[in-house]
Amino acid sequence: MNPVKRRLHQLIFEADTKAGKRFDLFLILLILLSIVVVMIESDDTIIPQADKWLVIAEWAVTILFTVEYVLRIWIVDKPRKYIFSFFGVIDLLAILPTYLGLIVGGSQMLIVVRALRLIRIFRILKLTRYVKEASALWSALVTSRNKIGVFLFVVLILVTIMGTVMYIIENPYNESFRSIPESLYWAIVTLTTVGYGDIAPVTMLGKFVAGLIMITGYAIIAVPTGIVTSELVKESGRPLNTRVCPSCLEEGHDYEAAFCKYCGNKLQ
Amino acid sequence: MNPVKRRLHQLIFEADTKAGKRFDLFLILLILLSIVVVMIESDDTIIPQADKWLVIAEWAVTILFTVEYVLRIWIVDKPRKYIFSFFGVIDLLAILPTYLGLIVGGSQMLIVVRALRLIRIFRILKLTRYVKEASALWSALVTSRNKIGVFLFVVLILVTIMGTVMYIIENPYNESFRSIPESLYWAIVTLTTVGYGDIAPVTMLGKFVAGLIMITGYAIIAVPTGIVTSELVKESGRPLNTRVCPSCLEEGHDYEAAFCKYCGNKLQ
Amino acid sequence: MNPVKRRLHQLIFEADTKAGKRFDLFLILLILLSIVVVMIESDDTIIPQADKWLVIAEWAVTILFTVEYVLRIWIVDKPRKYIFSFFGVIDLLAILPTYLGLIVGGSQMLIVVRALRLIRIFRILKLTRYVKEASALWSALVTSRNKIGVFLFVVLILVTIMGTVMYIIENPYNESFRSIPESLYWAIVTLTTVGYGDIAPVTMLGKFVAGLIMITGYAIIAVPTGIVTSELVKESGRPLNTRVCPSCLEEGHDYEAAFCKYCGNKLQ
Amino acid sequence: MNPVKRRLHQLIFEADTKAGKRFDLFLILLILLSIVVVMIESDDTIIPQADKWLVIAEWAVTILFTVEYVLRIWIVDKPRKYIFSFFGVIDLLAILPTYLGLIVGGSQMLIVVRALRLIRIFRILKLTRYVKEASALWSALVTSRNKIGVFLFVVLILVTIMGTVMYIIENPYNESFRSIPESLYWAIVTLTTVGYGDIAPVTMLGKFVAGLIMITGYAIIAVPTGIVTSELVKESGRPLNTRVCPSCLEEGHDYEAAFCKYCGNKLQ
Repeated sequence: MNPVKRRLHQLIFEADTKAGKRFDLFLILLILLSIVVVMIESDDTIIPQADKWLVIAEWAVTILFTVEYVLRIWIVDKPRKYIFSFFGVIDLLAILPTYLGLIVGGSQMLIVVRALRLIRIFRILKLTRYVKEASALWSALVTSRNKIGVFLFVVLILVTIMGTVMYIIENPYNESFRSIPESLYWAIVTLTTVGYGDIAPVTMLGKFVAGLIMITGYAIIAVPTGIVTSELVKESGRPLNTRVCPSCLEEGHDYEAAFCKYCGNKLQ
Repeated sequence: MNPVKRRLHQLIFEADTKAGKRFDLFLILLILLSIVVVMIESDDTIIPQADKWLVIAEWAVTILFTVEYVLRIWIVDKPRKYIFSFFGVIDLLAILPTYLGLIVGGSQMLIVVRALRLIRIFRILKLTRYVKEASALWSALVTSRNKIGVFLFVVLILVTIMGTVMYIIENPYNESFRSIPESLYWAIVTLTTVGYGDIAPVTMLGKFVAGLIMITGYAIIAVPTGIVTSELVKESGRPLNTRVCPSCLEEGHDYEAAFCKYCGNKLQ
Repeated sequence: MNPVKRRLHQLIFEADTKAGKRFDLFLILLILLSIVVVMIESDDTIIPQADKWLVIAEWAVTILFTVEYVLRIWIVDKPRKYIFSFFGVIDLLAILPTYLGLIVGGSQMLIVVRALRLIRIFRILKLTRYVKEASALWSALVTSRNKIGVFLFVVLILVTIMGTVMYIIENPYNESFRSIPESLYWAIVTLTTVGYGDIAPVTMLGKFVAGLIMITGYAIIAVPTGIVTSELVKESGRPLNTRVCPSCLEEGHDYEAAFCKYCGNKLQ
Repeated sequence: MNPVKRRLHQLIFEADTKAGKRFDLFLILLILLSIVVVMIESDDTIIPQADKWLVIAEWAVTILFTVEYVLRIWIVDKPRKYIFSFFGVIDLLAILPTYLGLIVGGSQMLIVVRALRLIRIFRILKLTRYVKEASALWSALVTSRNKIGVFLFVVLILVTIMGTVMYIIENPYNESFRSIPESLYWAIVTLTTVGYGDIAPVTMLGKFVAGLIMITGYAIIAVPTGIVTSELVKESGRPLNTRVCPSCLEEGHDYEAAFCKYCGNKLQ
């Protein structure tokens, strides 16, 4: 690795040096700026005459990110591994839409291109790179992923049956329940207690069944909270004891342990 | 049991063999297909000219399920037991509506027949047959069913009283609260925090009482979550390992433990 | 106590004998009937021509409950204690409205009298007399009543400040936020995640602040669930050990206890 | 410190003496009164002709609070420290708006001045001075602030991406999703299960994605509850009693224990 590469590697990939930290901070500010630009662009009422400047800002950020992306590929030892890694893909997704806007550009397709541009928002995922404290929460979610999966499966079955039942009840009298997919949407909105109110039962029987769904659903919906909480309780209840076995150097001994559970040697 | 029966029993009732697995997968795909057909059928805007094909698909699935149902009855040793079992009833409910559509068919009853047809959605319940991981969640719900029952009972009393009080307050000024059952529906929608907004208080006093219901209700509604969570915590805290140290006879060893943490002897 | 009184006492106050059980069941059915009557009465669309029969049913139930109330007073040893007890007051509230309807009756006051009649719904509270399993949930709520109180106090302060801030932001552009009490109502509807949508922010700044309220509020609203759950976890974790001290007869000893913690005697 | 100052210090700053308690109670009543005045003032329909009296009440409270504020500065040993303390700033914020109304007063600015006046609501924060039981809840929130922070960060990223995706899907067919900030507002309203319904998807794909957001979101939204609950469980499980048996030196005795449960000796 030549000195320039090593220098750049420190700057771009390592956050331990002062320069590396500054680089990362600059990157975050740039990401936030580009998100704000996308948001202002989408709303004509905020700064109507700013279109020209927004385009310039957009291109400036895109070019900076492109340079960064190329540098990252050039610097790392195994470029292929970076390119197909989670962040490699996101880094590419963050710059592609602006260039795609040039190629696909045309008068009719303009709106679609704008939409493609908006996927630049995935740039924000870069921020997750800087999050380290998330591990406890993440592991709680990962450990309980099977239970959450089963729960979601049960919810989907419930939603399908409830939605269809409500379609049968409400459809003849209520044009909001105009198809089963629409009724399934209503069932999800109701079971998750979001309750927009764009679709609501109007018949007596429909309201009665909807009430049953809400109350029964509420008792069931307590389950994901229970799953995550019990994982977190288990995790936080895990002994913080930091004793290390003097013989096999294993950690994780209970408070009352007198002997290492891995090698049987006496703990101190 | 003759060889054909044994072969079919393996295919249909057992999921351990390769053929049995393939059969089950085919069944699941068929169930999903039939649900999609019902959904498309209910919505004229998705594929308007597909009616003919949907009818064919519906009949194809119904006939396949009928053959399967008859085979199941023929194969098992105690047909009566299967027919009146949970899945036997569901298997029958899954094919009946299509045939009922033929018998009850007529010009005026057409809509009702369509509705009956839709109950075919119960076919999806077949899927639960393949769920095994749900036992932990299920046992948590079963263990806490008494507490959840008491909770639901209290909620129903609260809903009845609150709904009536709001009817007394709002009825003269708000045509949405036009009867007590309607007010009870509102109370359920509010207590479960669904909040459609199709019925909402308009008077000052009504809004004040509704606010009290929401806040008080919110403190109370935490109960089902608490019930389920405490069950899951208890369950996850339960030592799943019943190994006893052969030397000191102490219990409570972790899964990964190779040596007793109390006396240092080897565990078996 | 004469034999008639003793007989009636067994019938009305005790639920252990066969006759007493039947009496209680009859009472519950009567309560449910009277609630259904009130509901049908309030909605003219269910059975329009049933008014006459509903009045008769109402008076029949009222007279039966009056006889029961008088008997209860006559039977018990300390009538005054019963009259001013929780259920004594409810029993009176359950029969008063119908009689009040006679006295206050008039053409203009009719609606108010109807409202008074509806308080008969408190009859349902009689049902709680038959609930015994509720103690665990109740004690969890009672133990955590201080924490829930503090939480509700904090929520009320938050609601007052947030409601006022939103009134300042939204009032000039949104006639839904027409006064501070109205804004407080909105804040409660939002913080408890009910979200009717009858009042919703329309300005950019209002929506931004509302979003902050929702997210921050959501993190805070987890607190009551946490309070109730931790109480239930503590309670369910409490050893079910039923050993009784042979010396002082106290219960509630831990599993590992070898000596009574109250009197110091050896446990068996 | 002269005797007058010491007397006033006892009255205003200390709540232990009888006079001090009365002063604090008077202050709370005054705060509540001024909040009620602000609320009535904002709503013309409650007491239309009360404007004059409300102005007088407002000025009376403001002058009393000003006197109190000046006295506080005069009494304390280090006025600067009080002025820049949390409650010093709130005490000032509680009286400033009324005076600012005089200076900025004018015909066009009237509404803005009213808005400034409303910040007087911060007076209510004074109430927190009297809350002492909140410590357990507060410490649970403080301990879990990092986890809640990470959670809120993840929620914000999710909201940004989901909002943009829904903008791309819904914008051409639904004028409610008229800009990305608007869509982000929708995403927050949906993820927190508030669900006003002022913005709701109308396209099939939009409803499908919205359903995914609700269900996925619901599984994720269980996290803050889990965080707070696990903290409270940990805290409530913590043995608050540190008594050690004088005989066998064992710990973990219950509060009500009079004798050691391990050796039977008397506890101190």
